[in-house]
Amino acid sequence: MLELLSEHACFGGVQRFYRHDARAIGLPMRFSVFIPAAPAGARLPALFYLAGLTCTEETFMVKAGAQRGAASAGLILIAPDTSPRGAAIAGEADAWDFGVGAGFYVDATEAPWNAHYQMASYIHELRELVLRELPVDGDRIGIFGHSMGGHGALTLALRNPELFRSVSAFAPIAAPTLCPWGKKAFTGYLGADQSRWQQYDASALMAKLRAPFPDGILIDQGLGDKFLAEQLYPEVFEAACRAAGQPLELRRHAGYDHGYYFIASFIDEHLRFHSRNLRGV
Amino acid sequence: MLELLSEHACFGGVQRFYRHDARAIGLPMRFSVFIPAAPAGARLPALFYLAGLTCTEETFMVKAGAQRGAASAGLILIAPDTSPRGAAIAGEADAWDFGVGAGFYVDATEAPWNAHYQMASYIHELRELVLRELPVDGDRIGIFGHSMGGHGALTLALRNPELFRSVSAFAPIAAPTLCPWGKKAFTGYLGADQSRWQQYDASALMAKLRAPFPDGILIDQGLGDKFLAEQLYPEVFEAACRAAGQPLELRRHAGYDHGYYFIASFIDEHLRFHSRNLRGV
Repeated sequence: MLELLSEHACFGGVQRFYRHDARAIGLPMRFSVFIPAAPAGARLPALFYLAGLTCTEETFMVKAGAQRGAASAGLILIAPDTSPRGAAIAGEADAWDFGVGAGFYVDATEAPWNAHYQMASYIHELRELVLRELPVDGDRIGIFGHSMGGHGALTLALRNPELFRSVSAFAPIAAPTLCPWGKKAFTGYLGADQSRWQQYDASALMAKLRAPFPDGILIDQGLGDKFLAEQLYPEVFEAACRAAGQPLELRRHAGYDHGYYFIASFIDEHLRFHSRNLRGV
Repeated sequence: MLELLSEHACFGGVQRFYRHDARAIGLPMRFSVFIPAAPAGARLPALFYLAGLTCTEETFMVKAGAQRGAASAGLILIAPDTSPRGAAIAGEADAWDFGVGAGFYVDATEAPWNAHYQMASYIHELRELVLRELPVDGDRIGIFGHSMGGHGALTLALRNPELFRSVSAFAPIAAPTLCPWGKKAFTGYLGADQSRWQQYDASALMAKLRAPFPDGILIDQGLGDKFLAEQLYPEVFEAACRAAGQPLELRRHAGYDHGYYFIASFIDEHLRFHSRNLRGV
């Protein structure tokens, strides 16, 4: 059951916010959708956007300026929330990099998180939901994201390249098993056994694959990003792509930081990248 | 003294947030600026944006998606806050449509507001400040705004067409002396004598002028705007323009509401409108 929370005309299409009872999460979840104007009955390519730490389902739609390009390319945009809300786990909102707003797009195995923090499964549930309820073409779905959400987009795409046919990222946490954010989150959600972390590390996943995205992967990274040195490790993912024969366009931009002014500056190029890839599917 | 609070690379230019001691207000004020890439020494046309009720100097820069078009047109964008902050007047933050976040771009004459709520004078002070401190071409300054800020832009431009050479608005409060928001604000800031309200009513001002903007005025208004019937009165301003021989393009858009998804949808056309007008100055 999809509950429409609000709706706004936007670039000739419609910006919507929904709530639904999420089976994987066991709680209501919110997500946002932009649907461009289209002929009646048309099924459109769609792009999931996964946001970063502290964000919600609203952040991308408010700050990225993506609707203009999506309207022009005829792309549906779908942005989920970044964690369960209302799980009532003691301390879940005490840190900005773990718990509420920081689900890390993994399926938690450790108590108490495993009861609700099933964000990897949730993204698949949401994919099936929008296929049923919205005019999405299931054969033309891509995924992208920012920071923690860039990690989410890369790992979901590498685990399921048959479902997500195109992938890009802004400043992703590209090797989470190596960085403080990832170690903290994976220890909490997945436990101390690091062998279970590998399935959620984009660089580790790529090391086991052979060019899963022959049309390439696009990553933009600001060189003025204060998290770059300690948390992001794009060079590790770059090396993994090279070893896997995976074409990667990793663009390093002098002066740009980790925020949405950076994302907005390059959003159109990501939309065009996905639109081109999904057209060819 | 201009204090740089933060700076972000954005569309090849720079997004900045400043604080300064505002003489007209008697308190520190914040404002935001987007400066596109430009040749060294170049002075660029600039556009003031005045925001609506409850907004801050950040709202427009985060939500409107204006930097892309401004970078492309070579326009500087300047967005002030919507009221003094920290005046410590009893009850100043109790209402969302009066006091903090609701300065209405007037110079208050009534105590206790007259001590700090001098927003009309403040916009002029800010104009002089950016002329001194930023690469702004003083002969090519336009102004636009939304809702309360649309009222502010229209009244400031009509009072000073020699300073603001181009004007447009999104869903402006176009006849504030007739609507509940305007009556409440003007009674509080200006007192009960309605003859003193006229200088801050765009429709009343236009009635005394003869085509002050021969290149036209652009207004966009959503027809799904829940404030349209009771608060905005674009038809009163339209009639005043007709009587004054003032060319007005008032575009009524089916389905669009009062929010930033509406503004973002038409922001590029406003930037092009101003760019064209200011090029010809």
